[in-house]
Amino acid sequence: VTESAFIESLKDLATHPAARGLADDAAVLEIGGRCLVLTHDMLVEGVHYLPDDPPGDVAWKLLAVNLSDLAAKGARPVGALLGYTLSGDTGWDSAFVDGLNTALGAFQIELLGGDTVSAPPGAARTLSLTAIGEAPGPAPSRSGARPGNHLWVTGTIGDAGAGLRALRGEIPSDDALVESYRLPRTRIEIGPDLARLVSAMMDVSDGLLIDASRLAAASRVSVEIDLATLPLSTALLSSLGDSLDTRLAAATAGDDYELLFTAPADRSLDLLALGARFGIPINRIGEVLSGSGLRLHEAGKPVPLPARLGWEHR
Amino acid sequence: VTESAFIESLKDLATHPAARGLADDAAVLEIGGRCLVLTHDMLVEGVHYLPDDPPGDVAWKLLAVNLSDLAAKGARPVGALLGYTLSGDTGWDSAFVDGLNTALGAFQIELLGGDTVSAPPGAARTLSLTAIGEAPGPAPSRSGARPGNHLWVTGTIGDAGAGLRALRGEIPSDDALVESYRLPRTRIEIGPDLARLVSAMMDVSDGLLIDASRLAAASRVSVEIDLATLPLSTALLSSLGDSLDTRLAAATAGDDYELLFTAPADRSLDLLALGARFGIPINRIGEVLSGSGLRLHEAGKPVPLPARLGWEHR
Repeated sequence: VTESAFIESLKDLATHPAARGLADDAAVLEIGGRCLVLTHDMLVEGVHYLPDDPPGDVAWKLLAVNLSDLAAKGARPVGALLGYTLSGDTGWDSAFVDGLNTALGAFQIELLGGDTVSAPPGAARTLSLTAIGEAPGPAPSRSGARPGNHLWVTGTIGDAGAGLRALRGEIPSDDALVESYRLPRTRIEIGPDLARLVSAMMDVSDGLLIDASRLAAASRVSVEIDLATLPLSTALLSSLGDSLDTRLAAATAGDDYELLFTAPADRSLDLLALGARFGIPINRIGEVLSGSGLRLHEAGKPVPLPARLGWEHR
Repeated sequence: VTESAFIESLKDLATHPAARGLADDAAVLEIGGRCLVLTHDMLVEGVHYLPDDPPGDVAWKLLAVNLSDLAAKGARPVGALLGYTLSGDTGWDSAFVDGLNTALGAFQIELLGGDTVSAPPGAARTLSLTAIGEAPGPAPSRSGARPGNHLWVTGTIGDAGAGLRALRGEIPSDDALVESYRLPRTRIEIGPDLARLVSAMMDVSDGLLIDASRLAAASRVSVEIDLATLPLSTALLSSLGDSLDTRLAAATAGDDYELLFTAPADRSLDLLALGARFGIPINRIGEVLSGSGLRLHEAGKPVPLPARLGWEHR
């Protein structure tokens, strides 16, 4: 509650239109007739990644979580500024740089600058990154969903969360699920084309349900999700089996970095064609209705909202 | 040494011209015919500020250290992205937001976005900020100094370092010096006009001598500083007395956030007129020569370089 109060107090300061009331994934700044998208996400050891995750994977994740925000605004990557806390562990630092090099190449983004600081011994590593992108077309917000729109999501949901559970020893380990947790894909390649078709878009980072409820709140609409249509991977299904519990766990786990978006019903074929062109699964998982809040059902049978919809503040 | 190796390995990744080889205060990105300047600096509790510094002052300093980099590139502030680590101390958080509000207004910069994360209990606070500016004219680098140029600095040097010593109880306390440490001024107002007159410019953050030696290295020239011409405040002189030790301490203390720049000799009158127009002292403190490295003298008498020129990595 006090964390929410803190963020609310920051919103009072962010009055510029480019800030989008701090209610969006990124800032959108018009300059010289171009549309710049700016986002800044941090990773804290033990909070956003596990202390024994490979350093190169942490570098990848640091870029990916920021690029996912650019994707949600339909932006192509331009450059990144890195904030790095030296740990005193030179092996870790050097493996991080190797992974960063790989990730910069994979995501085709340039390292433009940043800051390297010392931290007190034993402090949890805190890594930050600012990603700058440019949107060639419209930069969708979270607030454009309209009653009658359909709700869609890219890829599959819940793999990263299951990977985290596997790393914690709560479920049997599975390479594909662990990789989903440590090396999120991001949908940066399809973002700009999707942006032309959607009415609202955001990335799924804190959990499908909490993120969908934020989209509903920003758009002042109600969102209804059919859990039966939730796209689940075969890796997830063979690890956890298919049940309502599995589907609710997947929908609240977070770290998916898939795109969640709404679009008018007459865009459905265009959306499916776009997904096919990029080889990215796109699935319709619900509806936008008038009213407010989030409702769940499973193939028509109402499902009560779980107590926890996802991560509140990380 | 290993920290330097880390930064060298990052430089290998930063091949885009906008990165300026990570050898500058900021990235300079041309977009849509406009010149964007981007910088990202972090503050770590116990490293860059004292744990009992007032939270509002920490917010001010977080903005100021970044805006000082914009000033050095002749850029005007556009917006900022804040990376904030929640501490669990709501009083601290709330005082930080109040100070941030004051500083945003004073520096006329907009809060555009960012990230708020939780940190493990007891972790040192790590705060990050990305500042985006726009240079209306040229964005000077560190590498443009030429033999025959004069070396100049704005304001006075060493006040913040003496303020830190006062807060640590090493010298008697003095309100003006403490304020210089906690609430650095930055030279954001004069930066764009200075940028039209200088051949190279940077801000003094790690210590006048170490920063001057970096400017010399980036420009492949030698810099000679006359310590007798170092501008010192009356507060500093009455606290520490005037001596070579005082002048060397001031020149290696850091946290000044003044602008250090070089210019052809025939620009001297223009520079002095500009300083007078803005009410900002501008003093000539040395010469640019061919060769390499840094040399010191005091009114013609050679002074050996101190063992420590300033902060290496913070």
